[in-house]
Amino acid sequence: MEVFTGDAPGPDDLGDVAFFTVPYDRPFGTEPIPRLTGVRVVQALTAGYDHLAGLLPGDVTLCTARGLHDGSTAEHALALILAAQRELPRWTRAQDEGRWEHTHTRSLADSRVLIVGYGSIGAALDARLRACEAATVRVARRPRPGGQVLGVADLDGLLPSADIVVLITPLSIETRGLLDARRLALLPDGALVVNVGRGPVLDADAILAETMSGRLRAALDVTDPEPLPPGHPLWHSPGVIITPHVAGGAAAFYPRAEDFIAAQVRRFATGEPLRNVVREPGN
Amino acid sequence: MEVFTGDAPGPDDLGDVAFFTVPYDRPFGTEPIPRLTGVRVVQALTAGYDHLAGLLPGDVTLCTARGLHDGSTAEHALALILAAQRELPRWTRAQDEGRWEHTHTRSLADSRVLIVGYGSIGAALDARLRACEAATVRVARRPRPGGQVLGVADLDGLLPSADIVVLITPLSIETRGLLDARRLALLPDGALVVNVGRGPVLDADAILAETMSGRLRAALDVTDPEPLPPGHPLWHSPGVIITPHVAGGAAAFYPRAEDFIAAQVRRFATGEPLRNVVREPGN
Repeated sequence: MEVFTGDAPGPDDLGDVAFFTVPYDRPFGTEPIPRLTGVRVVQALTAGYDHLAGLLPGDVTLCTARGLHDGSTAEHALALILAAQRELPRWTRAQDEGRWEHTHTRSLADSRVLIVGYGSIGAALDARLRACEAATVRVARRPRPGGQVLGVADLDGLLPSADIVVLITPLSIETRGLLDARRLALLPDGALVVNVGRGPVLDADAILAETMSGRLRAALDVTDPEPLPPGHPLWHSPGVIITPHVAGGAAAFYPRAEDFIAAQVRRFATGEPLRNVVREPGN
Repeated sequence: MEVFTGDAPGPDDLGDVAFFTVPYDRPFGTEPIPRLTGVRVVQALTAGYDHLAGLLPGDVTLCTARGLHDGSTAEHALALILAAQRELPRWTRAQDEGRWEHTHTRSLADSRVLIVGYGSIGAALDARLRACEAATVRVARRPRPGGQVLGVADLDGLLPSADIVVLITPLSIETRGLLDARRLALLPDGALVVNVGRGPVLDADAILAETMSGRLRAALDVTDPEPLPPGHPLWHSPGVIITPHVAGGAAAFYPRAEDFIAAQVRRFATGEPLRNVVREPGN
């Protein structure tokens, strides 16, 4: 077995590649896939895989990086929430003008936060929010026994008392437009909508209307369309914070990702079961 | 007993006032003190009281708001740390220009954080940082038994391996200039200095020099001088985030403060011991 890490030229014949890790955060990371005619495993470095679904031949095992981004994504979601509650963009702008402008802001403490899409990232965020003295409510596709996680069917009843809603769901037929104009209208005035999942889970026209009017606030790491084009009105909508899809990839991710890939390749070489398999050959 | 809350005119004769709460966050909150000739208790709404020390007659009990700001100050310290690690000011500036500029940043997770001035605010911050998967080291004036809290005498040995240093100390003869040029020089390149205590605990010239050169970063809620005057070079020093002394006063503080004052006044009226006494009459 030979391992090519990208630091040196790759194999002469891409058809010889058995295990392919899609490079993280490079625009053309998926480009070699059609030429990998002998590939048996494709390892994504993202938790979602909607962007790979149409590219793979039928006899490939697809593995994701589920879990590896948990800390980084949860941390960025917390950073967005705190930036919105403590109005950090206001201070950045005041600083750029050399203005000492003392005023008071909202808190995260004592806020009620809905975590929509409660999985491993949601659990990592939940621990952070509880340490910040926020009250959290966990929502997943279906309610789980014990009452600690509620289902999407409960969402309409939960929105009117939420100070903050965090979307962390993957994109699917069920989640596209999950937070639409009707559901946004259920949120109280001044509520904060955070999206670190996938842009189209939040209705783009509806959040633009609700923030342009000043009724809701938003902190978005993912958008629809994405990248958000220059001149799009969301850039300058009041109370909106935008970061360019950077939640999952902060410094702590890389060493964790390297360890994980090395272990996956070792499992593949020795015939052990792979982790994070989301598609078996032929499916 | 009559209670005056500031919503209506105060007593005709300030000499009749027995219990005085210094209004929070008003420039002239201390102004009536010299006319309170009969006052027996002065209740501050700040955790520090250096600004009151010279104003009080000798026969007054002074109480602070120790504890009431813990959550708010710890939350703001965390917001500053996350803003610096995840480069939120960069995104605010990119957003103002409508630019989608994807890049990767530092993490808080896996960072080593020194908490200097480990008291009740430090404990609140510690819980938040540990939930964020950071490793914390606690430093107080003196080491405490059990080894969980180290002393200031250990600081020089701890600085070279710190990614982040947070100052939360009150201002005293011992803490003025605590983090001076010599100690800042012990920090590794790229380290972040956070100050949510009092401005002069951090040497102003030294942190300006270390950030102007790009060697260190800083996130400061308190400055020296304070307010930072227009045109001061720290406003535009690279890698510096400034907020205008707003850590302690976010929304969650006010209801907690009202409950505390009501309880103190009740204790005073019924002769129960007061909480948070930092000076007895005659001292």
